[in-house]
Amino acid sequence: MTPTIKDVAKKANVSIATVSRILNNKPGFTPETKLKVLKVIEEIGYQPNGMARGLINKKTQTIGVIFPNVSNMYSAEVLSGIEDAAHEDGSSVIVCKTDSSMERTMKYLRVLAEKRVDGIVFASEMIKEPFYKFMQDVKIPVVLLSSISYQYPIPYVKVDDRHAAYTATIYLIEQGHKKIAMICGDRNDLIAGIPRVEGYKEALQHSGISVIEDYIINANGFAYHNGQEAMDEILVKKLDVTAIFASSDEMALGVLTTAHQKGIKIPDDFSVMGYDDLKLAQMSIPQLTTVAQPLYNMGKSAASMLFEMIATGEQVQSRIMPHSIIKRDSVKERL
Amino acid sequence: MTPTIKDVAKKANVSIATVSRILNNKPGFTPETKLKVLKVIEEIGYQPNGMARGLINKKTQTIGVIFPNVSNMYSAEVLSGIEDAAHEDGSSVIVCKTDSSMERTMKYLRVLAEKRVDGIVFASEMIKEPFYKFMQDVKIPVVLLSSISYQYPIPYVKVDDRHAAYTATIYLIEQGHKKIAMICGDRNDLIAGIPRVEGYKEALQHSGISVIEDYIINANGFAYHNGQEAMDEILVKKLDVTAIFASSDEMALGVLTTAHQKGIKIPDDFSVMGYDDLKLAQMSIPQLTTVAQPLYNMGKSAASMLFEMIATGEQVQSRIMPHSIIKRDSVKERL
Repeated sequence: MTPTIKDVAKKANVSIATVSRILNNKPGFTPETKLKVLKVIEEIGYQPNGMARGLINKKTQTIGVIFPNVSNMYSAEVLSGIEDAAHEDGSSVIVCKTDSSMERTMKYLRVLAEKRVDGIVFASEMIKEPFYKFMQDVKIPVVLLSSISYQYPIPYVKVDDRHAAYTATIYLIEQGHKKIAMICGDRNDLIAGIPRVEGYKEALQHSGISVIEDYIINANGFAYHNGQEAMDEILVKKLDVTAIFASSDEMALGVLTTAHQKGIKIPDDFSVMGYDDLKLAQMSIPQLTTVAQPLYNMGKSAASMLFEMIATGEQVQSRIMPHSIIKRDSVKERL
Repeated sequence: MTPTIKDVAKKANVSIATVSRILNNKPGFTPETKLKVLKVIEEIGYQPNGMARGLINKKTQTIGVIFPNVSNMYSAEVLSGIEDAAHEDGSSVIVCKTDSSMERTMKYLRVLAEKRVDGIVFASEMIKEPFYKFMQDVKIPVVLLSSISYQYPIPYVKVDDRHAAYTATIYLIEQGHKKIAMICGDRNDLIAGIPRVEGYKEALQHSGISVIEDYIINANGFAYHNGQEAMDEILVKKLDVTAIFASSDEMALGVLTTAHQKGIKIPDDFSVMGYDDLKLAQMSIPQLTTVAQPLYNMGKSAASMLFEMIATGEQVQSRIMPHSIIKRDSVKERL
């Protein structure tokens, strides 16, 4: 006969309510009781029925995370933070990869709604109207991560991209650089493109340096090969610059490789600055000076905010996470 | 009034069975019908109830993936393959990160059982007795990924670690190297430790080269810093070697960095070979010669095998995935 919650309570010598609290991660029991109950559960092979319980208390203790891509280090570090926050909350994480496809995103929103997830972290992508409309209709709480929407009132976690790019550029200027190229990923990207270019321009202007449009290279993406191609362009155009600010670490690494292949020395011939502080920024030669986003903590914060929304049913404040300059070996002072 | 499946069928002018097939990713409809039905579903805001459906047909269209760590590139690439296979199957992926903790692993197994997942991919970790016993009890199909069990009959997907290490060492020997150090990660690791050391030794012996135990460096892990420390050890001990085989790309990158810091030229002073072929192997300077594991395909295969087990209720054959040598710039021929 299949063991029931009553059997567990009886054998562990506690009330059914206590077993239920333990299973539902509600407070009100000692660690010793928890250990005892979990031991009994294992001994007698009791299986709480998550789906049936979900139907009763309307919570599935599951959240969805929507990423354009899960195979890069950016997503991996963010996901690690989300997973840890979910673990602490007693929840699980469904990971959905959209390849930035509108159709695949809609499919996943439907799947997550169908699975009755308690909430969604929507990462690194703009919220389009059908997405917002759908999430409104199904009333699932959402937090944006590394994204923002001016159209729709959704709380978000991100760094201030404009300010971070400003800070990076000011750092290069403080090191004596006046002729600074910027590789801007995708210039049409409303989140990681335009604001970073604006921050770069503002830093130059505040320092009395003219903006030269030719120094801004549109790389059409933020990947390694985009950085390689942008560095080729800088070299072919013979841009008269002493420093290069790449708006992703992957692109900065592409710059380092192209430079190395052409016999150009970093940081002697050019200083190079990245953006993100992925783990690989420490693994490059030379190690990459960069603007850090606290990726793990951004993931953790986004999930925590979501759990707060789920628990209270109320909106939460958006959070701007601190960026910081990480000084390593790819930027050289210019005397 | 909440719209029902009947409303969808009526408005789309198809049968209820067709709507059901479309929602359950079963065959038997044209792309046009699917499009029409999905459009109606969106228009009238119909919400199929996944949990209720799960209770009836006993399938949740969800699988769990258990990783020790999700923030490294290895897991990220494997996860990308798993997610794509799940997407094709119409299933979702719950990601669980255990930090290699026995307690956290047991907790997640319980959570996945409670959520009635259809199956589990258990990645990069040994199956311990309580894990196996639990999964047996709850009758959830499992596939091992980059892992293997001699004790328990669980199908697996992996490369042949011993053979891959053998192939890598033979490649170095073919390039004229006779004095080859091996950095072996964790020598006590039954999966990625011992077999790779054995493959290295076998290659030397088959080539008539004596094995020198001092040339085998136990790094106590497979991370970047383990490689840095191992390279320090090689230099301090003044090992008389011309090539270094690191049994992970991250460690090989640590070797490159330490070499660079000490003014040692790779591949002129030492040839360096990695293992994995992570994306970062292409991003290093020099680009890393390595033994490739087809990580994305391994993830995809593991998930496909799991879906086959779920559909048929039968065990599937384990798969040994092909490894291959990727020649880049960190190994130099020794004349």
